[in-house]
Amino acid sequence: MRVVSVIKRVPDEIKERLIKKFGEVEFYFCHGMKEGRQHIKEADVLITFGEDVTPELLDEAAGLKWIMVLSAGMDRMPFKDIARRNILVTNVRGIHAIPMAEYAISMILQVSRQAKALVQAEQDHQWNRSTPMREINGQTMVLLGTGAIAQETARLAQAFRMKTIGVSKSGSIKPHFDETYSVDRMEEALSQSDVVVAVLPSTKETNYLLKEEHFQLIPSHAIFLNMGRGDLVASHTILQAVNENQISHAVLDVFEEEPLPENHPFWDEEKVTVTPHLSGITPQYLPRGFEIFERNLHAFLNKREEMDNLIDPKRGY
Amino acid sequence: MRVVSVIKRVPDEIKERLIKKFGEVEFYFCHGMKEGRQHIKEADVLITFGEDVTPELLDEAAGLKWIMVLSAGMDRMPFKDIARRNILVTNVRGIHAIPMAEYAISMILQVSRQAKALVQAEQDHQWNRSTPMREINGQTMVLLGTGAIAQETARLAQAFRMKTIGVSKSGSIKPHFDETYSVDRMEEALSQSDVVVAVLPSTKETNYLLKEEHFQLIPSHAIFLNMGRGDLVASHTILQAVNENQISHAVLDVFEEEPLPENHPFWDEEKVTVTPHLSGITPQYLPRGFEIFERNLHAFLNKREEMDNLIDPKRGY
Repeated sequence: MRVVSVIKRVPDEIKERLIKKFGEVEFYFCHGMKEGRQHIKEADVLITFGEDVTPELLDEAAGLKWIMVLSAGMDRMPFKDIARRNILVTNVRGIHAIPMAEYAISMILQVSRQAKALVQAEQDHQWNRSTPMREINGQTMVLLGTGAIAQETARLAQAFRMKTIGVSKSGSIKPHFDETYSVDRMEEALSQSDVVVAVLPSTKETNYLLKEEHFQLIPSHAIFLNMGRGDLVASHTILQAVNENQISHAVLDVFEEEPLPENHPFWDEEKVTVTPHLSGITPQYLPRGFEIFERNLHAFLNKREEMDNLIDPKRGY
Repeated sequence: MRVVSVIKRVPDEIKERLIKKFGEVEFYFCHGMKEGRQHIKEADVLITFGEDVTPELLDEAAGLKWIMVLSAGMDRMPFKDIARRNILVTNVRGIHAIPMAEYAISMILQVSRQAKALVQAEQDHQWNRSTPMREINGQTMVLLGTGAIAQETARLAQAFRMKTIGVSKSGSIKPHFDETYSVDRMEEALSQSDVVVAVLPSTKETNYLLKEEHFQLIPSHAIFLNMGRGDLVASHTILQAVNENQISHAVLDVFEEEPLPENHPFWDEEKVTVTPHLSGITPQYLPRGFEIFERNLHAFLNKREEMDNLIDPKRGY
């Protein structure tokens, strides 16, 4: 039984723990696929970020039974070949929930508590106690999306005694939402918001879903935060929304074009806060990814338990 | 039955609600004591921030039965005269808990997620995804103090899956703390911290309680936040702690001298964040204060229920 990891810079403590825990397994921890390719022929299990899995690689990996993808998105995986070969695929769905929820709460508090003005006052040595503060306690957060990331964000928002409304395709009930609406009632949700958090994936249905008419429905004191995908709403729609005071502030971590061009008006717009697509970045990424792998390896070897985050190769998710 | 309020700028909706709810009560909403003084002779109840209550005023207010102090501190109240006259005193203890807890979480997230560096990068139009982010999830927060404000901060910290350790005089168990230590075991608590939040009042015992030796015990990656009183620790001790990397960052809302002098080294120290004693500032202050008053007025009139936040004038708290 041979496990080949092509993940770079796996911390030693993770390697040692796996080797110690699974004595019957031979582990090859390789620095990328270039180094790992030599072992692929005899690999039973491959641990990868997924972007290096090609039909040619699968042809070489004659004994491969399971691909553990240490990523949530799997746009480039050759699922047809995988399905034909009956290879199991698992991923790390939900791994971004904790850092992205912390990002959302952090940024909403920053805007509500005027962090930028306070930093400026500090730079100017100015003791100014009249900067108006806003609480998030008691406010309403509307989340576009009700998946793992939205749920974790809503869970924290509820701890701050915010009311949470989730909007999803089906509108089905999910944990940590006081109310859930289907997307055809999105307008009704938006009109109740103090904070709107968008965490939708990029699909046909979400492509430019948010339009000017929606920003007109959002109360003018509300904060709009997008940490899902940049193609949910056009840049000019956001700029118009802040310029015409349809919303009070936009916090953007994702953009139509990334990196955001150096001359883009977002950078200098006072009512827009730009962060460089980092809401999901965390030093806990690899430790958490390998924890999911460890649980799944245990299930894979025992064949009795079900593996977590099993992907249906016919659907690709 | 006459209630005299000398609180300035009480929102109309609060006045109207009280007048409507308590038909048998005559309310005089005055813009400060200067205006209110004319009614004090016939007042049964006085609503005040407390700083204007003098022995002379009490002599004038022959019928006074209850003083509602819309403040948490009552350093200047003439408690001897109050006790002799058997006047009830209630305050708004705990009113700062929600904004101060939001302040603490906001600032800890800001430091952990390098808000200042991100604001700078935004000003420079720089798309830089390599600024290291830190999660607060899984970290340990040590709170010096276990009162209402510390409890609310600990409650939110637990929602972020932080471990919470409270340090108080007695070390008695309080809600939202995973562990509570008495102050003679403070060193043990500090050595486990990722974040230290000080929210102690100024007393003989807390005066310069934190010394250099304590900062040496705090892990060097930890954040120190003081939103209690400035005389908990000397400025030079904090400066030394950041300069010698005993801690990674200090967030200070309170100071030995306030306003913080314009030439104080804290302003320019990169590893110190200064805010101008605003952690407790909130637009919800008067609404919450009058809510406590409303509950208490109900109890006062019915004489059956106990009033909230009753002060023992012999002890002054």
